[in-house]
Amino acid sequence: MIQIEPLSAAAFAPFGDVLDASGDPDLLINQGLCGRHHDRAALDMGDARAGISIFNAQPRDLPYRLDMMERHPDGSQAFLPLHQNPFLVIVAPDQNGQPGTPRAFCTAPSQGINLHRNIWHGVLTPLSDPGLFAVIDRIGDTPNLQEHWFETAYFVTNAPTSR
Amino acid sequence: MIQIEPLSAAAFAPFGDVLDASGDPDLLINQGLCGRHHDRAALDMGDARAGISIFNAQPRDLPYRLDMMERHPDGSQAFLPLHQNPFLVIVAPDQNGQPGTPRAFCTAPSQGINLHRNIWHGVLTPLSDPGLFAVIDRIGDTPNLQEHWFETAYFVTNAPTSR
Repeated sequence: MIQIEPLSAAAFAPFGDVLDASGDPDLLINQGLCGRHHDRAALDMGDARAGISIFNAQPRDLPYRLDMMERHPDGSQAFLPLHQNPFLVIVAPDQNGQPGTPRAFCTAPSQGINLHRNIWHGVLTPLSDPGLFAVIDRIGDTPNLQEHWFETAYFVTNAPTSR
Repeated sequence: MIQIEPLSAAAFAPFGDVLDASGDPDLLINQGLCGRHHDRAALDMGDARAGISIFNAQPRDLPYRLDMMERHPDGSQAFLPLHQNPFLVIVAPDQNGQPGTPRAFCTAPSQGINLHRNIWHGVLTPLSDPGLFAVIDRIGDTPNLQEHWFETAYFVTNAPTSR
């Protein structure tokens, strides 16, 4: 059983970037009517280019059964919700080429994430309709995908871990 | 007076790309649970790189007073709403180095846009709270900004144009 943690930049730092308007803006533009929080994601597209795709994912229920994680060896991948609904972000440290114990985060409204290159993560898991996201990732010719299926699935839940 | 038009890919094509999940997905991923609408934006960062910034803009009221338009000569700029609220998109064709007659579009929920390089546009104009957007644009060292102030401001409105 994996208990969901709130998403914070510090907790998420080993895996990627939290993309939100926290803190003071880096500059004020448009006659002071807009704050720009500048260049918040460590994009890494290797020798290929960045693109914007739209993902439309089916919402999932909790507890969520996690039987697979994947990673993209050739580039980073950012998920930007086109709505204010929190979504689940599951990541894991690498352990000898396989995902170690996963961690699950829940975003705040209007918060996105950028997964660094080659970070193990669960598939996109919205918790409510619509499951619409803009995804900024590598547009290239390589498969750029490695999957790992667990022998025993994990369950991700809001409830305190049972002992 | 400029009357707001609904945003459609065809009407917006001279200015940029509409970023949404319209049409069939280009591929189904995640065991069929997610549709990927692949690579929807013509990103153009010249010799620099793409970045993700978060904009936090003050909502505006209608009729909206348009006294300035700007363009970015060195790269494209995409706006992705981190919410489902429609926002105003004002663009204009170039006319001898100045904006011609502006056109105003209103997005549908969860719809983003990508402005092509050097397209005249109004500043980010959300119509309701929160004014939060992810912006994918060029991260570089040039000013990458040209402004044009109108001698007589335009007004953008939902009402039919008065004659």
